[in-house]
Formats: sequence, structure tokens, C-alpha cells
Amino acid sequence: MRTTVGIIGGGPAGLLLARLLHRAGIDCVVLESRTRSYVEQRQRAGMLEQGTVDALHEAGAAERLEAEGLVHQGIELRFDRERHHLDFPALTGGHTVTIYAQTEIVKDLVALQLADGPPLSFEAAALAVEQPESATPVVRFRHEGREQTLTCDWVAGCDGFHGISRATFPAGISSSYAHDYPYSWLGIMAEVPPSGGELIYARGERGFALHSMRSSSVSRLYLQVPVGTDPDGWPDDRVWDELAARFAIDADWTLNRGPITAKSVTSMRSYVHEPMRHGRLLLAGDAAHIVPPTGAKGLNLAVSDVRVLARALIELHRTGDAQLLDNYSELCLQRVWQATRFSDDMTRMLHARPDGDAFDHRMQLARLRRITASRHAAAELAADYSGLPLLT
Amino acid sequence: MRTTVGIIGGGPAGLLLARLLHRAGIDCVVLESRTRSYVEQRQRAGMLEQGTVDALHEAGAAERLEAEGLVHQGIELRFDRERHHLDFPALTGGHTVTIYAQTEIVKDLVALQLADGPPLSFEAAALAVEQPESATPVVRFRHEGREQTLTCDWVAGCDGFHGISRATFPAGISSSYAHDYPYSWLGIMAEVPPSGGELIYARGERGFALHSMRSSSVSRLYLQVPVGTDPDGWPDDRVWDELAARFAIDADWTLNRGPITAKSVTSMRSYVHEPMRHGRLLLAGDAAHIVPPTGAKGLNLAVSDVRVLARALIELHRTGDAQLLDNYSELCLQRVWQATRFSDDMTRMLHARPDGDAFDHRMQLARLRRITASRHAAAELAADYSGLPLLT
Repeated sequence: MRTTVGIIGGGPAGLLLARLLHRAGIDCVVLESRTRSYVEQRQRAGMLEQGTVDALHEAGAAERLEAEGLVHQGIELRFDRERHHLDFPALTGGHTVTIYAQTEIVKDLVALQLADGPPLSFEAAALAVEQPESATPVVRFRHEGREQTLTCDWVAGCDGFHGISRATFPAGISSSYAHDYPYSWLGIMAEVPPSGGELIYARGERGFALHSMRSSSVSRLYLQVPVGTDPDGWPDDRVWDELAARFAIDADWTLNRGPITAKSVTSMRSYVHEPMRHGRLLLAGDAAHIVPPTGAKGLNLAVSDVRVLARALIELHRTGDAQLLDNYSELCLQRVWQATRFSDDMTRMLHARPDGDAFDHRMQLARLRRITASRHAAAELAADYSGLPLLT
Repeated sequence: MRTTVGIIGGGPAGLLLARLLHRAGIDCVVLESRTRSYVEQRQRAGMLEQGTVDALHEAGAAERLEAEGLVHQGIELRFDRERHHLDFPALTGGHTVTIYAQTEIVKDLVALQLADGPPLSFEAAALAVEQPESATPVVRFRHEGREQTLTCDWVAGCDGFHGISRATFPAGISSSYAHDYPYSWLGIMAEVPPSGGELIYARGERGFALHSMRSSSVSRLYLQVPVGTDPDGWPDDRVWDELAARFAIDADWTLNRGPITAKSVTSMRSYVHEPMRHGRLLLAGDAAHIVPPTGAKGLNLAVSDVRVLARALIELHRTGDAQLLDNYSELCLQRVWQATRFSDDMTRMLHARPDGDAFDHRMQLARLRRITASRHAAAELAADYSGLPLLT
């Protein structure tokens, strides 16, 4: 098989890249190791920056997002039994964010892709990227029981943190940076309307809790739990009681309880790999970097990588100018490091450290108080949260 | 002896309070355990917020400050061999800071005090504050070889971190919060003009360095060093070479070297005691709180405590209204916690942690880059540095 851009990974990054390239007349092939239903069911993020929404429009994949996405004007910070609304449009000159689940984005993109091409193969497991430094790198993959090859001009590694793309980078040119946080998230999905219109970031001595949602009828809630927590140790009643305690504020606010349909524990990690390009192999999304979910940046960073990558490949295709492609790694990494900083700040400000003392606790409160007292501090958080501008 | 306000400690906090009260017609007595020359020579801070300058004017103690103080329009951040000027007036709507050494403030205040009263006794060591909960607390002190008592309406504990005032607070009402940072500062005073007009905060893999000054002919410079460093292990040439390496940026910038007249190592600590009032005993300055010197907040916090305290005592004296005095601890602590947060942020952003890894290093760079890229982030730093408004 031969294509212009071989895309390893059919998550939101790979699928979006395929749509953007296809619409620009660049042919590509997407190889996804899992089944369609696995990819479509995999629970991930749900908070989209405006730039992510824009990219889905650009890809022609925003019809259902427009109809069903929930536009949010801000978030709520809750601490010391007080609630503080951050008004994003007022703080950023008009930015909003949109709630629309990653699973739905993937379904929309898969449907378009299968209806309209370019080729998308499920259960096509990439095994290696060969000769990435040559003019025609080759992706070796296993599909329908046999090993096959895909010869490309460019390979996009969109195969996530555990994918094979990053492993292809020679040790001599690679640097990686990692931090593991000493707590995890127990996340639940519940068939119950959200307990309010906004995301709520609640900090307290019992630990962090996040009130989020996937739609007007599905709540998504998270609890800070110790590393190594077994979700089986958290029967539904215990989850609801702990959530209620962490969000407790006054008699006027009630947590809506309902049937829990999913429950899982996620570890919290920051990870950045440099560079994001080696020869004709380009990494995008989780293949190159991971953020803790507190800042809701993971999916948005993947999309911003893809936007830069699509523009760079389209520019090369149309004009022969490779400059944007040559700057790809550097441009993306600037944004990646800023999003990592923001995610790290949010994470440290909101979670109770297992070895934390009363001083740490007061520092967290002082940071939160400053955000609610200073327009500049609030505007910084709003700018970071709603998405820094794309660099191209 | 009998007085209205007994002031324990003749550092800048106690002396300024005495001047402000005296000018309002409230009598007071200052007891200082050390000698005059010790107090006047003790090297401390030198960066004054506008509010600190204003308070010295209000106290009638700003004549020499006006003539000799150096008004600074901002600071420089130096990292990755780049220099970035933060323009405080532009970022804050007009704030500046002033360089004038604490030793000079103390000399000015001591001279006024001795010329014009109220009483100031050196080598008068407070031993205890008795019955702070009664209407007439008593300060027991040793002076001229014998124990004496000073009966007061109010006692101001301005006797620093190691003073006796804070120890008078019963354990049952006291909370304290502390953090020790895993590095120290080696500070030098040098008879050489500063190597530029501004303070320079330099971050690098060799550690933090600060270029400061006490006047147009005296440089004050600091190096991050390991905890437990013996200054004798740092001969003058080693100090200059290390400073030059940490500030190195390009051929256009040279560090001025000259005779080193003082060299000492300071540990880095955050400490807050709550509350700041017990009965008729009120703490101000280092007696209640310590910040690491990175944000230049120690002296300024002491002065802002004293400003609130003087206003509160004057209000009570003039109108009989004790409300400000009743709010003293709470009002001061809000500002103290914000200054502690800022000092903690600056300290963590600029020092190389002995156990720090490459991820920490990149996070520090990302924070610095954000400050130099975002007007809101820069304005936050400038507002914190040049001084948050006084709460009364």
C-alpha cells in the first residue's frame, strides 16, 4: 500500500488529521489497532476549547456538536464553603468552552471517515515505523491476520502514550520529562442530570472533587483518591456520600444522585517527549505528551497539534514550502509546555497532598483567594483554561 | 513606668509605630534589647513598596529617603540567556518601588526618636508580657542591670522572629504554619556600583542569583547555596566567579567586581503565626511572620502591619471606636498570606531544587516564559511585587 500521509491511531487526533487532510485533497490512510466499538466507547475528556470546536468545524465534523454541545461561560471554584464563578467571556474578551464528549467526537469522525474516505482500518496494529529518516518511511502493521506495509511520504504518530510511534525515535535525539502526582482520580459516569450548569472544581481537606457532565442528562464526577485505589472499594453509596461531602456548601446546593454506569481510577501524570518530529515521522497528541486531567487539556492539546500538523502538510502540498513542517515540533512544544504548566498549577492548587501539611493547605487557599480577588489572576486562569492561541 | 503603648523591639516596625503614634499624640515607649549600633548596622532588606515609602513620609522620616532612595521602574528576569524587563508603572497603573536600605531607615528613625521622643531604650531586654488579657498588661524587662516593669494600655510585639512576644500567646489559641526551603542564600555587600540600574532575578541550572544594590555605589548580591553552607568556603574570587556565571548572558553585560565588605548565609523560611492579637498584645512584622527574601516582602509586610496598627490605635484614641483594632489580626493576615504566597511562588520558580529533576526545571522555565509572554501574568507579578493595597 502507498499513501501520502500514513496515520497511526484512530483516536480523535488521527481521525481529525485524516479529515483535514482529505478535505485539502491530500490522501492518507488511518490504521487503528482496536475495534471500532472500543474506540467509540473509550471514556475520555469532554471539555473543548474554542479552537478545538473550530477545528471540528473546519473538518466538517461539527454538525452534532453544534446541536448537542453545551456552551459554558466559565467554571466555578469552590473552597472554604464559598463558591466563585469565573466568567470566561468577560475575562478573556469573549472565549467560551464547550462540553461535548470525546466519545461523540470519535463517533462523528468515524462515521464521516467510513462514509467518505480516506481509508480507515480497525484492528490494524502498527508494529514499526521503518526508515523514518528516508523520503519514504514505511509503516509495518498486522491486519486480518497478516503483516502488511504502508509506504508513505509522511507518518503521523497519533497512537497515544502506549503507541509504537514514539518508541521509534532514537534515544540519542530524545528527551523526556515526567512527573507522577501522588494521587489518582476515581471517575464515575451517572445517568442523572448535572447538579448545576457549570463545571465545579472543589478543593477541601477531604481532597479534590470535580463536577462535570457529558450532556444535559449525564453527569461525570471525579474524586481525588489515593494512588492504587481499587474502584471496587467504592460502592455507589460511598461515592455519592463522598462527593456530597466534598461539594457541600450550603442548604441551597444539592448533588443529584442517580445510577452509576461506569467507574474507574485514573493516575495523574505529566509527560513531555522532545522533539515531536524525527525525519518524516511526526507525533501528535498523547503519543508525545500527557497532562493530568485537572486542566482539561489532553484532548485540546492533541487537537492543537493536529491543527498545526494539518496546516503544515497542506502548506507543503500546495506551495512546496516546508517551513511550517520544519517548525512543527518547536511550535507545538511551546503550547504543550504552557498547557503542562497550567495543568500542573491547577493540579497542585486543588489536590490535598498525602504528605501535605497545614502550610501547603494555606498556600492553596491563598492561591485560590488571589484568583477570586484579582482580575489579572482570574484572567490568566481563564485564558489558560479556554485555550491559548495557536502558534503557526 | 506607665505608657499608653509599650513597644517591644526597636527595629523598623517598632520605631515606625512609635513615630506614627507620637505624631498622633499617643504616648509610647520603645524597648530594644540590643545596642544602638547593632540595630543600625544589622543588614536586612532594601526594597520598599510605595506604601512603605508613604508610611515613612507619614512618620516624618522620609527626608533622606527622598534624597538618596533610588526609584525603580521594574525588575529584570533573566533565564535561558535572555533578559526580560518588567515595567511596573505600565503594568500596574503607575507603581514604582524604591531602593533604600533598612539600616538607613533605622538610622533615620532612631535619630528622630532620640531627638524628639517618645522614649527609646537600648539594651532594654523584654522578659515577659504579663496579663495581656487584662486592661493593663505589663512588660517586664531588664535594663541597666535591673528588672523593671512598663505598665501599658496596649503592647505592640515588634521584637522579631526570636522575640518574646509571640511566645506569650497561649498554645490553645495559636496556630503556626511553616515551610523550610531546601536552599540558602549567600549574600554579599560590595563597595562597587551596581552592574545595572535594576534588580536582576536570574534563574539557571547553577542556581538562583540576585543582583541588587543599597545605593549607587554599593552592590548587594546573592547566590543560592546549599543549606548549611559555610561562608568561609566562599573566598571573594569564588563568589564573583559564580555570580558572573549565573548572570552571564552576552558580551554586552559585565558584572562589576569590587571589595566585599560583608558575607553571610541566610536560610529560607516561610512562617505565619495566627492570630496576631491576644488580648491587648498585638504582634507586628517578623514577630508574627517570616517570608523567604525572594519577593522582598519582609520589611514591607512589617510596615503594612504597623500602618494598620497605628491607624487602629489612633482611631481608638480619637473616637473610642475599637473596630479596626478588633479586626487587626484578620486584616493583616489576609495581606500576610498573599505576600507569603507570592514569596513562595517566586522562591519556587527561581531556585534550583536540590532534588529537582528535568521536569521541574522545564516547569520553572514555562512559568517564567508565561510571565514574559502574558500581560496578565506580568501584571500579577508586578502587583504583588510593588505591593498589594492595604486593607483597613
